[in-house]
Amino acid sequence: MLKALIRYDGTRYFGWQKTRYGPSIQGEIEKALFLLTQKSITTEAASRTDRGVHAREQAIRFSLTKPLPPKTVMRALNARLPSDIRVLQIEEQSFHPTLDAVGKEYRYRLCFDPVILPHQRLYSWHYYYPIEREKVNRAKEKLIGAHDFSAFSNRKEKNPLCTIASIEFDGDFWIRGDRFLYKMVRNIVGTLLYIGSGKIPEEALPQILDARLRKNAGITAPAHGLYLHKVFYPGKVVR
Amino acid sequence: MLKALIRYDGTRYFGWQKTRYGPSIQGEIEKALFLLTQKSITTEAASRTDRGVHAREQAIRFSLTKPLPPKTVMRALNARLPSDIRVLQIEEQSFHPTLDAVGKEYRYRLCFDPVILPHQRLYSWHYYYPIEREKVNRAKEKLIGAHDFSAFSNRKEKNPLCTIASIEFDGDFWIRGDRFLYKMVRNIVGTLLYIGSGKIPEEALPQILDARLRKNAGITAPAHGLYLHKVFYPGKVVR
Repeated sequence: MLKALIRYDGTRYFGWQKTRYGPSIQGEIEKALFLLTQKSITTEAASRTDRGVHAREQAIRFSLTKPLPPKTVMRALNARLPSDIRVLQIEEQSFHPTLDAVGKEYRYRLCFDPVILPHQRLYSWHYYYPIEREKVNRAKEKLIGAHDFSAFSNRKEKNPLCTIASIEFDGDFWIRGDRFLYKMVRNIVGTLLYIGSGKIPEEALPQILDARLRKNAGITAPAHGLYLHKVFYPGKVVR
Repeated sequence: MLKALIRYDGTRYFGWQKTRYGPSIQGEIEKALFLLTQKSITTEAASRTDRGVHAREQAIRFSLTKPLPPKTVMRALNARLPSDIRVLQIEEQSFHPTLDAVGKEYRYRLCFDPVILPHQRLYSWHYYYPIEREKVNRAKEKLIGAHDFSAFSNRKEKNPLCTIASIEFDGDFWIRGDRFLYKMVRNIVGTLLYIGSGKIPEEALPQILDARLRKNAGITAPAHGLYLHKVFYPGKVVR
């Protein structure tokens, strides 16, 4: 079994998962694997990133019927993949991308300039309302720890319990946790920025969490600011 | 007369200058001016950036037949321009974009990673040959000062004399000078990297300059790594 770390610019993709609606990361990788091996090979990923979301380091696995050296597979895939998807590392390793993952880190990039900067337009959310950073910094701490995050999911969840280890805000958001619900990171970002801009009162955050109603929280931040930054596996930390 | 500072992602443009072959920065700005004023207005720029070249801060000028507040013009243009071109600043000022310019700074972005990073693929040159940085650092100093730069121009020049004030190399190149010949920055970058990789001997550089023959120098680095970083005007430095 091979474990690969991949990076992609999600701009033109319908997300990780194969879909008949348009191109997907999984579809492109399986196409490249088919070109290489002439076999249909299924891949699995740590995170099924949504349409338009980027990945700095996504972990995937797949198996070849005829073994090849990992370096050869990496070179061969990069030669066959479109340039907005790249394999950064491959090794022989037995693991399960979702069940073995102990945590993930997401980055959400923002542009606060009055005019959106052309080179960042596809890679950060242009948030042009003024914000008070202290409000954001105080509010984000209330989300740390184990909570029922139903208020921050865009669908009904079987298990809404997640533990957020840390949220850093340095102009971008850096969010670490054990697991994330559907659109949870983007809902957290939208809510924290709404608090920073005074659209949601700072004091309301504990009640928003408790009420477990999506409609009380802020908007879902757009996909193109979101990056899957890293996936953590036990024993060794995926850099 | 209005002076505007603009920024653009040059990826999909045929350069600053209007051409019948495809979209240009000048063409888009004049189209936006026409939408705003219903008049054909001509614009002039400090640098006629080539096809695929980016600008962090290009200076342009134009005149309106009916005066409007600069802030209004800026907002109106940004509302009408495609999102890969933005007006960052506008002021009432009488100046000539090329004749008054006392210097320019270019940045050339590079990616030395073994695999090109998807988010940088459109914005930096993926140079995958190993280089010795000391060689590059020694060689670049030989270009500083006033020289006949014919060897670094892709066409016959009437006046090939330029003064390079500084070249910094921190992984990217930052090059300042009073004026630049056709494709001169890209030829300097290609030549310095070839020296760094041992494809051109370090000692050959003074002879390359003296011989004034383009064929002795290294390759022209591709357009998509090049940024017009700033244009300097006397009196006050354009940040």
